[in-house]
Amino acid sequence: MNTFGKMFRVTVWGESHGKALGAVVDGCPSNLPLTEEDIQKELDRRRPGYSIFSTPRKEPDEVELLSGTFEGKTTGAPISALVYNKNQKSKDYNKIKDTPRPGHADYTYGVKYGNYDYRGGGRSSGRTTIGHVIGGAIAKKLLDYSHNIKIIGYTVKIGKIEGDFNYYSKQEIFHSDINDIIEKIENNPLRCPSSNVDEMKDYVLNAMENKDSVGGIVELVALNVPAGVGNPIFGKLNSELAGALMGVNAVKGVEIGRGFESAELYGSEMNDEYYYNSENNIQLKTNNCGGILGGISCGAPIVIRVAIKPTPSISKIQHTVNVKTGKNQELIIGGRHDPIIVPRAIPVLESMVAITLSDLMIRSGFIHPCRL
Amino acid sequence: MNTFGKMFRVTVWGESHGKALGAVVDGCPSNLPLTEEDIQKELDRRRPGYSIFSTPRKEPDEVELLSGTFEGKTTGAPISALVYNKNQKSKDYNKIKDTPRPGHADYTYGVKYGNYDYRGGGRSSGRTTIGHVIGGAIAKKLLDYSHNIKIIGYTVKIGKIEGDFNYYSKQEIFHSDINDIIEKIENNPLRCPSSNVDEMKDYVLNAMENKDSVGGIVELVALNVPAGVGNPIFGKLNSELAGALMGVNAVKGVEIGRGFESAELYGSEMNDEYYYNSENNIQLKTNNCGGILGGISCGAPIVIRVAIKPTPSISKIQHTVNVKTGKNQELIIGGRHDPIIVPRAIPVLESMVAITLSDLMIRSGFIHPCRL
Amino acid sequence: MNTFGKMFRVTVWGESHGKALGAVVDGCPSNLPLTEEDIQKELDRRRPGYSIFSTPRKEPDEVELLSGTFEGKTTGAPISALVYNKNQKSKDYNKIKDTPRPGHADYTYGVKYGNYDYRGGGRSSGRTTIGHVIGGAIAKKLLDYSHNIKIIGYTVKIGKIEGDFNYYSKQEIFHSDINDIIEKIENNPLRCPSSNVDEMKDYVLNAMENKDSVGGIVELVALNVPAGVGNPIFGKLNSELAGALMGVNAVKGVEIGRGFESAELYGSEMNDEYYYNSENNIQLKTNNCGGILGGISCGAPIVIRVAIKPTPSISKIQHTVNVKTGKNQELIIGGRHDPIIVPRAIPVLESMVAITLSDLMIRSGFIHPCRL
Amino acid sequence: MNTFGKMFRVTVWGESHGKALGAVVDGCPSNLPLTEEDIQKELDRRRPGYSIFSTPRKEPDEVELLSGTFEGKTTGAPISALVYNKNQKSKDYNKIKDTPRPGHADYTYGVKYGNYDYRGGGRSSGRTTIGHVIGGAIAKKLLDYSHNIKIIGYTVKIGKIEGDFNYYSKQEIFHSDINDIIEKIENNPLRCPSSNVDEMKDYVLNAMENKDSVGGIVELVALNVPAGVGNPIFGKLNSELAGALMGVNAVKGVEIGRGFESAELYGSEMNDEYYYNSENNIQLKTNNCGGILGGISCGAPIVIRVAIKPTPSISKIQHTVNVKTGKNQELIIGGRHDPIIVPRAIPVLESMVAITLSDLMIRSGFIHPCRL
Repeated sequence: MNTFGKMFRVTVWGESHGKALGAVVDGCPSNLPLTEEDIQKELDRRRPGYSIFSTPRKEPDEVELLSGTFEGKTTGAPISALVYNKNQKSKDYNKIKDTPRPGHADYTYGVKYGNYDYRGGGRSSGRTTIGHVIGGAIAKKLLDYSHNIKIIGYTVKIGKIEGDFNYYSKQEIFHSDINDIIEKIENNPLRCPSSNVDEMKDYVLNAMENKDSVGGIVELVALNVPAGVGNPIFGKLNSELAGALMGVNAVKGVEIGRGFESAELYGSEMNDEYYYNSENNIQLKTNNCGGILGGISCGAPIVIRVAIKPTPSISKIQHTVNVKTGKNQELIIGGRHDPIIVPRAIPVLESMVAITLSDLMIRSGFIHPCRL
Repeated sequence: MNTFGKMFRVTVWGESHGKALGAVVDGCPSNLPLTEEDIQKELDRRRPGYSIFSTPRKEPDEVELLSGTFEGKTTGAPISALVYNKNQKSKDYNKIKDTPRPGHADYTYGVKYGNYDYRGGGRSSGRTTIGHVIGGAIAKKLLDYSHNIKIIGYTVKIGKIEGDFNYYSKQEIFHSDINDIIEKIENNPLRCPSSNVDEMKDYVLNAMENKDSVGGIVELVALNVPAGVGNPIFGKLNSELAGALMGVNAVKGVEIGRGFESAELYGSEMNDEYYYNSENNIQLKTNNCGGILGGISCGAPIVIRVAIKPTPSISKIQHTVNVKTGKNQELIIGGRHDPIIVPRAIPVLESMVAITLSDLMIRSGFIHPCRL
Repeated sequence: MNTFGKMFRVTVWGESHGKALGAVVDGCPSNLPLTEEDIQKELDRRRPGYSIFSTPRKEPDEVELLSGTFEGKTTGAPISALVYNKNQKSKDYNKIKDTPRPGHADYTYGVKYGNYDYRGGGRSSGRTTIGHVIGGAIAKKLLDYSHNIKIIGYTVKIGKIEGDFNYYSKQEIFHSDINDIIEKIENNPLRCPSSNVDEMKDYVLNAMENKDSVGGIVELVALNVPAGVGNPIFGKLNSELAGALMGVNAVKGVEIGRGFESAELYGSEMNDEYYYNSENNIQLKTNNCGGILGGISCGAPIVIRVAIKPTPSISKIQHTVNVKTGKNQELIIGGRHDPIIVPRAIPVLESMVAITLSDLMIRSGFIHPCRL
Repeated sequence: MNTFGKMFRVTVWGESHGKALGAVVDGCPSNLPLTEEDIQKELDRRRPGYSIFSTPRKEPDEVELLSGTFEGKTTGAPISALVYNKNQKSKDYNKIKDTPRPGHADYTYGVKYGNYDYRGGGRSSGRTTIGHVIGGAIAKKLLDYSHNIKIIGYTVKIGKIEGDFNYYSKQEIFHSDINDIIEKIENNPLRCPSSNVDEMKDYVLNAMENKDSVGGIVELVALNVPAGVGNPIFGKLNSELAGALMGVNAVKGVEIGRGFESAELYGSEMNDEYYYNSENNIQLKTNNCGGILGGISCGAPIVIRVAIKPTPSISKIQHTVNVKTGKNQELIIGGRHDPIIVPRAIPVLESMVAITLSDLMIRSGFIHPCRL
């Protein structure tokens, strides 16, 4: 099942060490200005070699846009784009064939498919999110162009180090100019706008020295989503976002608004009261719901948090089985890996939010399904 | 969007104060023994009046099975079942029409649909989960009958009171006889097997006295799911479970395995190592992944936790708007409500796990799509 | 697979001799005026006992509308409606269990499902089209209310008797007042507006005397469909119509516009030339394409023809097998049957056209997916 | 909507004069032997320049297989394949921009999308069926490898010239060795095994001299399809086949078995009686149903006929409008075109039959959804 969405549909394909990876975006309305640069910009944000915290695999990840646009604008036809692999080092992975790596999908792919491409994790590699980002780049353009919707992701926690910047601590920022904060996020190897980010960096460096890896929490905010997006009962905005985000590699938890904290609150604390603002528009006094009520957006910012586990590839000795010998054995993973996937996951998570919103905004009648 | 699933499909319908509510289950293979009692048993678990902690609305919720079985077994044809409403008191809800209740879906339904049935929350009412439970009862029967799969849900936290029973604290129980623990759960008004459950009850009673409501956390464990269920990239088991559960009313967070805690762990702590057990089967030493790797089940129990917000209906004075007068005003909610929805939500959450698993087990080739 | 449509979705259920039959319509936008009478009117058109040419089974087919409307208008919630069976005579069908009737689905259902409801054909009975007509009644109302679209079906051929009324012979009628022709169709037991209809009646009566049955051809015209409906490549209007209609019981062929005749024409005969009419609108000089080019409606009437095979239930001696004895044997079908299904099939075929158009008009942006 | 299928899904993309065209096949089980040659072989069958009856556009149509296989076998991951365009002559098409060609999709694409690639018909070009054939080649391999299913298409009529070879005239051939007949079909520019094929060739040559084009009828037979394929009510085998085939460019009619002729038959003529054959298997005496009863295959060959209209591109003077000048005008179409599309359409039609069968055989439990 490599297609996401019902009306705005993204089909992704490709393996870590195959010839190429790509996506076909179907259901994007015509007349959206779109160039290779729009997609390249987002691919560059997830590219390996982004910082000291990412795998040293050198991949230019240059996108080729093959169909679906004419004279610089979309035509309503499917948009096909791909990236050729350039820097595969498949030998590194020969040993995976028989000794499934703990925390990876080697074992489950082997059980499920029998024949699978184990090189670099094959289809289960983080590299397959190139397709997500191609789809996400187009979705972001569509949302921004048609509704000025902005999707912003940033790190709020690394390992045990909690940052001091998050939506509920800095809510006012999201109602003023957000460009400053976006710049801060993008010029930071952890994509973390908190003031205690150096503490986080040290935490990761320390883990790297110990041949270990760390996880973290990402917060995602979508601004300017109009009230009315989302289709109860089984097409709720929160439901589709949770499904989309939980499906990204390494994600182990998703919460909307106050999330798990809401279980601790009283109804009188959690409920967001309504009032008429000075322009006579109905607004929420607080946004504990995270912008969604009854599965439908209420006009407040959409607020999501996502837990990302530590990268399973570590250089420490681990125990596993050898399916060829039928015996237990030790394993030391070679190859090139990220000690932390959190910052590179952010454009992927933003992409899934953008794709989900694009799909639901078409399905909710905010974006015309065929033409802008 | 009132249909869930691709191969095992549940379509739900009905409003809180309409004539009836029900579900159509399509794609259930033939030859599954199924009677009204199988469904009634599960409906009784979510029925109002279940305990002092639930709404006093008296509804027998008697199911009528209308199609899809012949001589006590399914035929592969769609299974339609419904429950007639008996005890509507619609007058209680007249005031909702103009004054949206904080934390409810009144405002978003009004914005989205213009005309909507506001009585008792209409389509956004928790009462609509009757359809989920009808579908879930059939899915549970299918999973149990074909693969001996058991799905067990229980409360692990109420408000700020953390229970002492959860999967990671009592893992051994899930590998021995679970009937004791199921009995404990079902004979307890909070469906909580922890030893400090009385503390939780007091917490809820105290909130009730204060005209307030509380939330909580539910843990769900699925036993005996074989390795290989789940279809990457966009049909991952974790992704579909998260989407299914986040869509249940009042859910604000979902985590798989160690969930948000995994963000704090090192890779060497999080990774589940493999070994050959005494029967020469490959097993995990730990189950931090919650039974899913790369979106595919690995044979270990599936472990999920879900955060449920406090019931938004509280009798305290709240502030809202009056869309008729165009002015802010105070609101005191009458009607009949649950001070806590957690225990009654459990059969609904279990149902969504069962439906999701049924669908993915068919899509993954473990259950034949047409006949048992 | 008992759900049709992607955005306007109709789920049908029920068996010929079960408790009830019905449909759930999901994705109908809110604010459409809708009552039980709108549905009853269409059900009455397909009801048994309609004329001397239909089965004597007495069924009032009274619809109950159970959800999805409020104060006489739709709410965007799923619309559930059903009809209880009243006049089952299941004993007539006992012998089918072991001796599959030629031309019926008994054999294939038996092979596929093992356990199936053979009484009256069970799920494969023409009676299951009650669900189609419920869905179609709502779709017709939606199309008419929002775009003044009319769908008209009528018999153009019975057995070997070709009628003198069809779209290409009487094209001008469809551009003037069509109420006369509709009245003519509805007040005629064969739903045939041709002047030689008596010849057709005699043909059927003659077959009845011979304990035989006859087939025929139905033409369907949809008026006022705007240009732009249909989504290439795999959601073409002609493709979805053909799939919808070929799925109706007894249909063996579907053609659009000139259909099979177009294979005999030269390009210069088949091509419909364009011109500006007196209001400066682009129009087709002819309508050989049947209103669809490249899978997209072009503004001209949609023209479809459907071939319906003779009713397979005949009272003549036939040869079949007995799966219990494992021997060949003779069979005489008892029970109550239609000597011709063509006139009763017309409301069903119209329904499928209406449902397909409703779905594609939402998907093509002509009807808002959530509210009118 | 550029994806076909529910479990075996083919997503196609590309324009006639764009950079490339291709397909992504998702849901093909692992362990199917598959190479570029398997796909190339089928692409060669639809390639332009196939004979004097096809467009002189020179395109090698060399396929690149980019993902989804490992060591010569499928892995269950999506299979992406593409063909780069080499011989575009886009200048030929400049005039289409303003003067829609009769019988083509220029007008409807313009109305629907505003911005569209008009060069060579863009997305509505027959060249886009490269994607269908890529998907079809994989589907054919899957069907043949797993069930020895063969799909054979051939011309039975060209213009007004009816051939003497068709399923009902030569039924015995399909139960003996079919290789002779396949060879005859493939070594014939009209893909017609009838003895009067020269008469057909003259018919086409005559039309070419008159700057005109002709249509025809194709028959498709699928052998060795087991009984039980197809899912009533809305996933019937006949319904899905009809939808798939009617969606192929230029198709105006589809019939199953006796098709439109069945409307003329009596029930006693149409019904296929059952008998036990010498191996005690249940069989049909005749195959008027075309291998499908109640939407489910019955084990007899699937028999389909498809009407193809004459190629709309003709060099004769035609009348159309000029949307720039707002006036009627004459049009002579330049560029390179097929005087008849029938023979080149055959591999495309076979592909759609193969894709439909693959999808329904997975959905009906005959092929495992994940691995062979």
